[in-house]
Amino acid sequence: MLLAKIIRFIASSRIDERKGFPQKAKDMSLKAGKATKRVAICLEMEWGHKRHLETYAGVQKYAEKAGWDCVTIPSAVRVLKPKSGAVPFDGILGRITEPLAQAAHKIKMPAVNVWLNSPAKNISSVLADFETSGKIAAQHLVGRGFKRFGYMGFLREKDSRIQIEGFREILKPLGFRFTTYRFPRAGLGGEGLGWERFLDGLEKWANSWQPPIGVLVSNDLYCRHLIET
Amino acid sequence: MLLAKIIRFIASSRIDERKGFPQKAKDMSLKAGKATKRVAICLEMEWGHKRHLETYAGVQKYAEKAGWDCVTIPSAVRVLKPKSGAVPFDGILGRITEPLAQAAHKIKMPAVNVWLNSPAKNISSVLADFETSGKIAAQHLVGRGFKRFGYMGFLREKDSRIQIEGFREILKPLGFRFTTYRFPRAGLGGEGLGWERFLDGLEKWANSWQPPIGVLVSNDLYCRHLIET
Repeated sequence: MLLAKIIRFIASSRIDERKGFPQKAKDMSLKAGKATKRVAICLEMEWGHKRHLETYAGVQKYAEKAGWDCVTIPSAVRVLKPKSGAVPFDGILGRITEPLAQAAHKIKMPAVNVWLNSPAKNISSVLADFETSGKIAAQHLVGRGFKRFGYMGFLREKDSRIQIEGFREILKPLGFRFTTYRFPRAGLGGEGLGWERFLDGLEKWANSWQPPIGVLVSNDLYCRHLIET
Repeated sequence: MLLAKIIRFIASSRIDERKGFPQKAKDMSLKAGKATKRVAICLEMEWGHKRHLETYAGVQKYAEKAGWDCVTIPSAVRVLKPKSGAVPFDGILGRITEPLAQAAHKIKMPAVNVWLNSPAKNISSVLADFETSGKIAAQHLVGRGFKRFGYMGFLREKDSRIQIEGFREILKPLGFRFTTYRFPRAGLGGEGLGWERFLDGLEKWANSWQPPIGVLVSNDLYCRHLIET
């Protein structure tokens, strides 16, 4: 199985172009864009996901060059809708929902969204390129000589929808088709209330195959479940 | 800052000593302990925590030698309290609560707990040794020449309580004292509803210091928050 992830800039951040936004209230005075920029990083890092931590690492790398002062905050909600007189930032980078995008626009705080499934429109976003990863996976499996294919990923989430498009874009012109197993993400965390249903669907899908088959799974954990089925 | 983690066997698993428990229903028949053992691994791996993934890797390493067939399942609840006629296992390893420990005992399924904060008693557990990590941290900070110390970690969780004991065990005989900042874990994930309160307490604590000070933080993410304060 192959899980490729290629990062593509959908729109570049304009944070460093802005000048003169209020600085850290307690120890800095506003001096026409000369003070250090304070940027809030809201990546839900309590989840140890590699993609969150590597986004964080990439931001820090850029921030060091740009001379930003980055502050890690659990959620963009706490920056854009704080409980009380919170310290203003010069910009925010995180998982930005539509109401948060509106809040950022209202207070003129530059915001960069890194959440693929965000319904927010008109916001700069930096997202993984799932179409290309779907294409690469298909090319890899075709190159390995497979003639039958499968795709397994989330239901109702953009990553799988876009990845399938890329997967199909390679396979269709070659005359290949593929079956899919798409499942709701909810119910597989915590107590795993959706586990039995997920497993039942997975077993049915795997039993319908005529091996050999080349399969793309959107996520390593679910790929593990498939291997164990 | 130092975050050390030393694994200690509190009690060893007895899973491989058991014989003759029903095997995978669909393709194996019960042959007096000769069939491959099926073990459920329930480590909440949807969180990408290093400690969960490395526990999983360690289990797989042992399983390969022992010839186990491991199945990754989101939660021990789904194994010990399944919705419907689930496939039985020969053993389970995971975050075992008291009701789950009782359920395992009732169906005579060997269970190994890896959750430090589990209230379950009379269960084999494999846990990180937080007392020793607290000692190592104190020794490290003393070795660096600090004379004032601080500890920051969770409120009402065993890891911090035990780590503080180890920290104190080294510092007290040397005549050193330390201040602590302990905070509830809840409210710092998701929307971060407890963020402002957490930050307020953190700033007050840091402002009370008389530097230089050597600080042990129980978790890298919260250490990052401290550095940024």
